Amino acid sequence: MKTFADRLNEEIIKKDTPCIVGLDPRVGMMPDFIVSEAIEKHGKSLESAQHCIVEYHRRILDIVGGLVPAVKPQIAFYEQYGVPGMKSFAETIRMAKERGLLVIVDAKRNDISSTAQAYANTFLGKSNVMGEDQFIYNADCITISPYLGEDSITPFVETCKNFGKGIFVLVKTSNPGSKDFQDLNLKEDSSPLYLQVAKMVKKQAETLIGESGYSSIGAVVGATFPQEAQKLRELMPKSIFLVPGYGAQGGTAKDVVPCFNSDGLGAVVNASRSITYAFDSTDISENDWGKGVYENTVKMIKEIRGVIKK
Amino acid sequence: MKTFADRLNEEIIKKDTPCIVGLDPRVGMMPDFIVSEAIEKHGKSLESAQHCIVEYHRRILDIVGGLVPAVKPQIAFYEQYGVPGMKSFAETIRMAKERGLLVIVDAKRNDISSTAQAYANTFLGKSNVMGEDQFIYNADCITISPYLGEDSITPFVETCKNFGKGIFVLVKTSNPGSKDFQDLNLKEDSSPLYLQVAKMVKKQAETLIGESGYSSIGAVVGATFPQEAQKLRELMPKSIFLVPGYGAQGGTAKDVVPCFNSDGLGAVVNASRSITYAFDSTDISENDWGKGVYENTVKMIKEIRGVIKK
Repeated sequence: MKTFADRLNEEIIKKDTPCIVGLDPRVGMMPDFIVSEAIEKHGKSLESAQHCIVEYHRRILDIVGGLVPAVKPQIAFYEQYGVPGMKSFAETIRMAKERGLLVIVDAKRNDISSTAQAYANTFLGKSNVMGEDQFIYNADCITISPYLGEDSITPFVETCKNFGKGIFVLVKTSNPGSKDFQDLNLKEDSSPLYLQVAKMVKKQAETLIGESGYSSIGAVVGATFPQEAQKLRELMPKSIFLVPGYGAQGGTAKDVVPCFNSDGLGAVVNASRSITYAFDSTDISENDWGKGVYENTVKMIKEIRGVIKK
Repeated sequence: MKTFADRLNEEIIKKDTPCIVGLDPRVGMMPDFIVSEAIEKHGKSLESAQHCIVEYHRRILDIVGGLVPAVKPQIAFYEQYGVPGMKSFAETIRMAKERGLLVIVDAKRNDISSTAQAYANTFLGKSNVMGEDQFIYNADCITISPYLGEDSITPFVETCKNFGKGIFVLVKTSNPGSKDFQDLNLKEDSSPLYLQVAKMVKKQAETLIGESGYSSIGAVVGATFPQEAQKLRELMPKSIFLVPGYGAQGGTAKDVVPCFNSDGLGAVVNASRSITYAFDSTDISENDWGKGVYENTVKMIKEIRGVIKK
């Protein structure tokens, strides 16, 4: 069984880009040609939102499927549409995998170990359903939060080992508030909390190194903090970084450079809104919209390709 | 509109107990009289798990509805059964509210602010669905994780203000791994990280104080760490504590005492497995099971009542 890191690196090399596309279903920002059809069929209901999400993502996946190695559905934006939203979440994962894309679920989940195991089973492994183990969402990777400590991380790590899956642990997030706790210096060695979290990620990462030399236990490192990224890159050389914050959140191509290793690998850079919602939703044709998503994706790929040393 | 804290305190006083019951749907631990009926009707499917969860919780809620002020569904154990699991989650909340119980969703969610807002809408407030705002799960309260900082907390606080809802922020969790990061001493004042998180909770709590004098912005403080609870009680006098770790995790009645204020209020104590799964699932009648859940609940209520000063 191939590790997640090996599968991701293979796709990065094949598509010649570490860029990934974030899927944040916000129906209010989707083009009229999607929304009006849904309202005609299902009215102003949650089922209508479900229909929009599936249709919108089917089109996006058709466009970006051949361009990028992975997509990152942000589960909060599916959850906001209740049970029908979760149906569209499952369908989005299915459609992405059908097109050969890896799926990184941005869920920032975690809990005490027995509960963490339930999350790991739900998204990566198998749940025991009436005595029989079965996949639920069967994504490739999930983001998780470290606040509960190492015993909340290990159930995910074990599940990654058993099913060839991966995790990205929040280390230094892209938002301004990441300074509030993550940047606090510790008494022991005057280094910030996020470096302590990084040391734990490094320790866990060492236990799951693939043939590519990279671990399936990675870290979330915001594009908005390049200096911190530099330090983290040195500390966790074998972990892949999931880099949010590029584009709409203000991170530039230059800012993501420190997230990469000298082999040109070691990071995936995500953009969501700047690719999928950079349109006037009330006045765009399906054709122009599709051209726009394609061009936004290609533009990002070129920008990032232009700055990574190889 | 009454605040969450006022509603919770009213129920605590009315039922004369701060004990709440955790709902962790683990179908493999449910009694045969529930499971065999579901398999007969739906086979070994996710729909069968959904059926078990609804039936099991309907019975539990009938028993504990008159005894305790609130229930705490742990969402991970619903999510593990996929979309049908989420249907049973929505139905559990509906059934609990129908019986006059407050619902505290244990989800430990969070993300950057725009995404945090989506979670707040999903669980506490309203989502914009095809141009119309509507409740999704309409729970009373949710647990959230602080690692992303204050700007990830404020969307929840605003939603609590708008809809009379509440949050419990993870401060000092009940698991052994809570020492890994939460207990790290900071350079600035040699106090642990969890106290820094508590200061932020206190600041936010001050903005949403109800008539009972308590805030709807509370903290999760594990029953397994009574000394830390003492410090936290002093620092956050107006925040209600959600106290997990009693019972199956090793916390005793004596251990939860420091979580309370001298008025006998200020905390809710949760027990899950020790109330709902303290049975031999293969060999118990519906009658004996019901009697057991009732007795376990009453036993806990008496134990906690015996130690709280009033």
